[in-house]
Amino acid sequence: MKISEERLFSDLNILRSFTDTPGTGVSRFSFGENDEKARRFIKETAESNGFSVRTDPIGNMYIRLLKNDETIKKICIGSHIDTVRNGGWLDGIYGVVSGLEVLRTLAENRSDRASEVEVVIFAEEEGSNFGSTMTGSKFVTGIYGEEDLNRLKNDAGSSLREMLLKCGYPPYRQEEIIWDFSRIKAMLELHIEQGPILEREGKAIGIVDAIFGMTTIEVTITGIGNHAGATPMRYRRDAMAAAALCITEVEHIAKGDPEGVIVATVGKVTVLPNCSNVIPEKVIFTIEVREKREERIHSVIKEIEETIVRISEQRGTICEIQKLADSKPFRMDDRIIKLIDKLAAEADVPHQIIDSGAVHDTCIIAPHAPSSMLFVPSKGGRSHVPVEDTDPDDLVRGAQLLLNTVLII
Amino acid sequence: MKISEERLFSDLNILRSFTDTPGTGVSRFSFGENDEKARRFIKETAESNGFSVRTDPIGNMYIRLLKNDETIKKICIGSHIDTVRNGGWLDGIYGVVSGLEVLRTLAENRSDRASEVEVVIFAEEEGSNFGSTMTGSKFVTGIYGEEDLNRLKNDAGSSLREMLLKCGYPPYRQEEIIWDFSRIKAMLELHIEQGPILEREGKAIGIVDAIFGMTTIEVTITGIGNHAGATPMRYRRDAMAAAALCITEVEHIAKGDPEGVIVATVGKVTVLPNCSNVIPEKVIFTIEVREKREERIHSVIKEIEETIVRISEQRGTICEIQKLADSKPFRMDDRIIKLIDKLAAEADVPHQIIDSGAVHDTCIIAPHAPSSMLFVPSKGGRSHVPVEDTDPDDLVRGAQLLLNTVLII
Repeated sequence: MKISEERLFSDLNILRSFTDTPGTGVSRFSFGENDEKARRFIKETAESNGFSVRTDPIGNMYIRLLKNDETIKKICIGSHIDTVRNGGWLDGIYGVVSGLEVLRTLAENRSDRASEVEVVIFAEEEGSNFGSTMTGSKFVTGIYGEEDLNRLKNDAGSSLREMLLKCGYPPYRQEEIIWDFSRIKAMLELHIEQGPILEREGKAIGIVDAIFGMTTIEVTITGIGNHAGATPMRYRRDAMAAAALCITEVEHIAKGDPEGVIVATVGKVTVLPNCSNVIPEKVIFTIEVREKREERIHSVIKEIEETIVRISEQRGTICEIQKLADSKPFRMDDRIIKLIDKLAAEADVPHQIIDSGAVHDTCIIAPHAPSSMLFVPSKGGRSHVPVEDTDPDDLVRGAQLLLNTVLII
Repeated sequence: MKISEERLFSDLNILRSFTDTPGTGVSRFSFGENDEKARRFIKETAESNGFSVRTDPIGNMYIRLLKNDETIKKICIGSHIDTVRNGGWLDGIYGVVSGLEVLRTLAENRSDRASEVEVVIFAEEEGSNFGSTMTGSKFVTGIYGEEDLNRLKNDAGSSLREMLLKCGYPPYRQEEIIWDFSRIKAMLELHIEQGPILEREGKAIGIVDAIFGMTTIEVTITGIGNHAGATPMRYRRDAMAAAALCITEVEHIAKGDPEGVIVATVGKVTVLPNCSNVIPEKVIFTIEVREKREERIHSVIKEIEETIVRISEQRGTICEIQKLADSKPFRMDDRIIKLIDKLAAEADVPHQIIDSGAVHDTCIIAPHAPSSMLFVPSKGGRSHVPVEDTDPDDLVRGAQLLLNTVLII
């Protein structure tokens, strides 16, 4: 059984046009105008193929056969359709379009499997609107509840509750949102890698094993802000000079991992007062450490914190360290990983087991149901940028391997 | 002849209250409401003492005896009354109040010198309103001309021309602005040091010799922005990690000056996209180098630029370097320096010759007329902050030494 390349690319290309920023990547925020257009296109496409479409009170969308047996176990396949600002054309939506294509192929081939498949669109995965990632999957697993509808607010000050009302989704009822995991046979998500590993290793498919855990800390270094001309070097307590040493050490520590697994990033740096002629008084920066081994995250964070305290003391600045976020690493379902590995080998597709440094909706589902993810290579390892791309052959191979997996699972 | 401490502190304390930000330092922008209140207070005080007050079309204010002999040479003493946002209570205005006190003391003692003295308030020295520092002195020396009235705009979009009109200053006529330097015997400015040297050295007075020159460059390092979780350390081109090494090297190079004169500062750092979970794509930072020896500025800038290019190449990032500003170092009038040095010694005031890393209005005047500056210590070396302060005894000693200088010069 083969998926249709033509339908796959036709859908992807149409959906690519639903963007707030034509010409500079895809900007499609959940609950916005182009999100609505994309949903309408997917709904009409699904319904014209004879499928039923349901949207839950959070905006998660479900596509399946009209006459679904409520007693049989489901194979959920899906991803998200929202993007970051000026993001790429594949992140998320590739998994949704492939899911729809798998269901379509199964249905037109009158496979019994068609009645088991449910295609899922998780709402607000990127957090571009409400600042909270994987919102839809957090609601279906009960991590988020009704109180979060008021707590989550976008930049314009609208609550998630107001936004959902405006979108015309059904009123909040928890029983319409939470999944019955006893009925889930598997959760599968096909996604672009968003990193450089598969391309560098010459592989077409990555089968996700471990999802990295992550600890994010925020460091504030306070020195003495003073006139950049009138303060000799020997009398300075320059917060930026201290922070620069810390940032260099963060990279040094992460690069010291002999297995090359751990990653540490200083992505956000705020300097005060940030004037060219004033010695920086305060520098606030984030450090994010990700790894698949939980104990390594803790030991590296400890090493980084000790190093920062030492640098700050040596330079007569004051440092404060605050934990911003913390998530544990975990592993995908071993049986499913082995199955996909076997199917990829049979199809002669170059593949490898891969870790995911990024977190996806399926990582939220994984503790509750047998789950795995398939990655296809990202050109240049780039994602969340307009140039995000994947070789068309790889896109086809990914969707076909998803179908093969659904057929056997 | 002695200045009056009481009048000096009374004036300073009244003027301190004219601020947009009571309780958090002095914020008095030129041409604003509190600038207008301060000018009115100074004008009324001067007029009640029998002096005449004139404001030129740029807002520079001049105070002198009613019957001034237009043929004799003038001794100009003054500074500015505008501040940075949340600045201190002494920066600038101390020199103006001391100038007024010197004129008052001379007049009440019926000194002939009184008719030679002109107290000057230079408009918009800090550039807090129109972003251009030493605006008033640049107009009186012809560095700025009529075309700059339209060019200079504040954040609200008003041109300097519109603002001056609103303040009710006389219409622009160049001959009313430009100084006749053949008539200037000396320009003297008393100012807080704004740096830590006098306090650290235990001196009450600094007599400014060299004014530092300055070169400011802007460095843009472009790496590859990518997902902080999905990109292994070995595949990164992290613009912030590269910038951190550069910032450390800038400090290292400046600290390598055996004489401890040169200063180099990275005061402004902008990171893009500045998200905790994205490897920085671009970092833009300024480097400001100041020194009294021009050739050292150029050699240090060259060394810094070469170091940055090397670091950037080693890390596979791209760097661009642009010159933002450039000014030459120069020296104050040797005869006046020696005179003040002698007077300070006679008065038994601990003093030293000092360089100024900061640029003041008098530095703009200095190439055209014999000039010098006197500094008093800044507590903790701090300025441009609400805690800016100077020991009252030092404030009195500074004003008295200014009077002594005017009497002899």
